[in-house]
Amino acid sequence: MKTLTLFAGVAVIAVTSVAFADEAHENKDPSVVARQSHMQLYAHNMGVLGGMAQGKIDYDADAAQSAADNMVALIGMNQMSYWPAGTDNASIEGTKALPSLWEDFDNVMVINANFSAAADTMADVAGTDLESLQGAMQALGGACSACHREYRQRN
Amino acid sequence: MKTLTLFAGVAVIAVTSVAFADEAHENKDPSVVARQSHMQLYAHNMGVLGGMAQGKIDYDADAAQSAADNMVALIGMNQMSYWPAGTDNASIEGTKALPSLWEDFDNVMVINANFSAAADTMADVAGTDLESLQGAMQALGGACSACHREYRQRN
Repeated sequence: MKTLTLFAGVAVIAVTSVAFADEAHENKDPSVVARQSHMQLYAHNMGVLGGMAQGKIDYDADAAQSAADNMVALIGMNQMSYWPAGTDNASIEGTKALPSLWEDFDNVMVINANFSAAADTMADVAGTDLESLQGAMQALGGACSACHREYRQRN
Repeated sequence: MKTLTLFAGVAVIAVTSVAFADEAHENKDPSVVARQSHMQLYAHNMGVLGGMAQGKIDYDADAAQSAADNMVALIGMNQMSYWPAGTDNASIEGTKALPSLWEDFDNVMVINANFSAAADTMADVAGTDLESLQGAMQALGGACSACHREYRQRN
């Protein structure tokens, strides 16, 4: 799970249909639906960790560990089919992904490596106690922001 | 990743906000957004595998393997925070999850175990060749349907 697989491989797979119909995503490019779903799962698990870190959710070691492990699992997934060329916000509707994301590939990989490392650190300590979780939160949240700041359109 | 973690743990975490705003999901319960996003990622990766199996996408060993590995990673994630009690379709809007999903917990776990086993089998062979992928497809697709047939509202 330590291997960075965001854009691993060279094949660009055109997934022309999704088996799970969801009216909320009608008319969206399937690759955009997939990456936004992936982001939702990051957000959901970050919501658990961040909620505990901020005292909005009671700390629960098992739930914290699960959320951290989920982050690691998600980052370990191969996302090559989510990000085909031509699905930036200058090319299609329904996405905030800037063209620079495809142009700055090396930097995206650096950000992703930092994200992966921060999630690993979180997974190492999230189940220990609240203070340890809080200590790992800034780096993990910062890793999310690092990519959004550079490569996501500001409303 | 072999451990079944769908409902592992006892804590039910109320995730009251998601960090990744998406207008498509406005007003939806955050746990519903999370599980539907998870389903989208199943669907996306099943779309790759199914598309190849049906000859709609050219077989590519690396892409097939990645999609199968993604299925295994997704099934291995802990989903306890997605399925709190009271988020069935009789209780809230925006979901097709039937109340029986919570009532037939043991059977849901059996279906999930079959799903996990089918994904493991797919991951063992997806990168070998198209025929092997095709041979593993029916069990994997069947495992999806087994849960939808029982626990998802029709239409």
